[in-house]
Amino acid sequence: MRGIEVKNVSKSFKDTQALRNVSLTFEEGKIYGLLGRNGAGKSTLLNIISNRKYPNEGYVSVDGVPAAENDEALRKMFLINEMNLYPESMRVRDAFKVTKTFYPSFDEEYALKLSEMFELNIKKKIKSLSTGYQSIFRNVLALSVNVPYVFFDEPVLGLDAYHRDLFYRLLIEKYSEEPFTAVISTHLIEEVANVIEEVIIIKKGEILKNQSRDSILENSCTVSGTISQVDAYVSSLPAGAEVIGSDTIGGLKSVYICGDTGSRMPEGLERSAMDLQKLFIQLTSM
Amino acid sequence: MRGIEVKNVSKSFKDTQALRNVSLTFEEGKIYGLLGRNGAGKSTLLNIISNRKYPNEGYVSVDGVPAAENDEALRKMFLINEMNLYPESMRVRDAFKVTKTFYPSFDEEYALKLSEMFELNIKKKIKSLSTGYQSIFRNVLALSVNVPYVFFDEPVLGLDAYHRDLFYRLLIEKYSEEPFTAVISTHLIEEVANVIEEVIIIKKGEILKNQSRDSILENSCTVSGTISQVDAYVSSLPAGAEVIGSDTIGGLKSVYICGDTGSRMPEGLERSAMDLQKLFIQLTSM
Repeated sequence: MRGIEVKNVSKSFKDTQALRNVSLTFEEGKIYGLLGRNGAGKSTLLNIISNRKYPNEGYVSVDGVPAAENDEALRKMFLINEMNLYPESMRVRDAFKVTKTFYPSFDEEYALKLSEMFELNIKKKIKSLSTGYQSIFRNVLALSVNVPYVFFDEPVLGLDAYHRDLFYRLLIEKYSEEPFTAVISTHLIEEVANVIEEVIIIKKGEILKNQSRDSILENSCTVSGTISQVDAYVSSLPAGAEVIGSDTIGGLKSVYICGDTGSRMPEGLERSAMDLQKLFIQLTSM
Repeated sequence: MRGIEVKNVSKSFKDTQALRNVSLTFEEGKIYGLLGRNGAGKSTLLNIISNRKYPNEGYVSVDGVPAAENDEALRKMFLINEMNLYPESMRVRDAFKVTKTFYPSFDEEYALKLSEMFELNIKKKIKSLSTGYQSIFRNVLALSVNVPYVFFDEPVLGLDAYHRDLFYRLLIEKYSEEPFTAVISTHLIEEVANVIEEVIIIKKGEILKNQSRDSILENSCTVSGTISQVDAYVSSLPAGAEVIGSDTIGGLKSVYICGDTGSRMPEGLERSAMDLQKLFIQLTSM
């Protein structure tokens, strides 16, 4: 079996249960968005998958083989996050060389080309880079490493709009040339909504949604109208539809709905699409 | 004269000219977006306005009075940015108390209420807060300080989508109750586009745009069609219209235009609105 399987993983730190019995699969050649509030458990999950932290229970397998302490499995994966694995005084160009020794598939020439595109000064020491350029440095590594599973934890933290746009375009270009599995954990949901195919929403250590982006968006909507009309509509909804939130301004109300609302839409009410970020905010606000 | 006036300000560091002859005005009771690439000079400008850095040339006045080394003028302003002015081992609740002694208008009770809404633990030491909670801590200060001029430098860095949404809503609520001048420097342009009235775009230390958001957006558009049609259209544009960028996909081309294009739109071409972030990316990409 190809892909990464996370099976019944739990992890706690001191008095915090970071992950509770998490099971999910990352298939080959797909782009996933891993979405969650600060502290929801995203980074812990990524650290466990890539063997940087150990679960209290459960396991991870890569292409059918248990990943823990398995060098071959670990070299199929690459995680970038705030934990810097390079000595702080190392220069960017030396970090490229070191990466090449661990990952023979690392394309040093491409990394240099990307550095130029992002105006990343390869002579600088890693520790002297700004927040934005730390992110760029990590993204250059991840885009050049050429392994089947790449995990991006907050890849656009501190990046300006032009650099974010460039990153998304390069990721898609790379993926189009040779598909790989990319898992992107980010707070900039609306920007990544067009890049990802699959959405995983994690809340307080548990998986809340694990679905394709399209099916999530098709199965949700906003309905707006006067308070009394909207309330009447909500009370008549079929069992499969769930109201996940509402906003009231003056005498008007909007409700956010997941699931099948049926086709009936009373006159005077307006139904509109929900965007992924709005849906996320509603699902994770409590 | 009320408001903040920045007059012919220049600033250089070593071999970098951070600001070149910058002049602009922040009027009373308006919300400004200060937009620029990483390194464009935004933070330097804000630090100079609030007297944390000194210009090589030019000056800043607050309500008609020179701001440099003028305590009364300085107390009308509050800047939050990555430079932390509090001792690192100070706890959040003690930082509130200290702020109150410097800014008597600081509303401690409101700061505590906001801390609860953002789940900011006021017993924590400032240095132990995560990137996101460092931002939240600074935003709580800025929203509670009640001075006429508040500068937010990257207020949403590291914040999740729910907390960003909450921040924008609280800022608007605060502003509606009692208007003040807010200057928001951010890379999340599209999110802030509905919050700001005025847009200042800074590029390589110079002011590129200084205009209301509405007039900027009304005066820009995207025109798409086949390459030959679009090229013919571009060569016929009046002098007041400027093509600021283009994208080509297959045989189709989109051009991004600022200024008055006139009313003529040849058949087969499609004209659409530009959003602020797209406009920014085009204007600052080179």
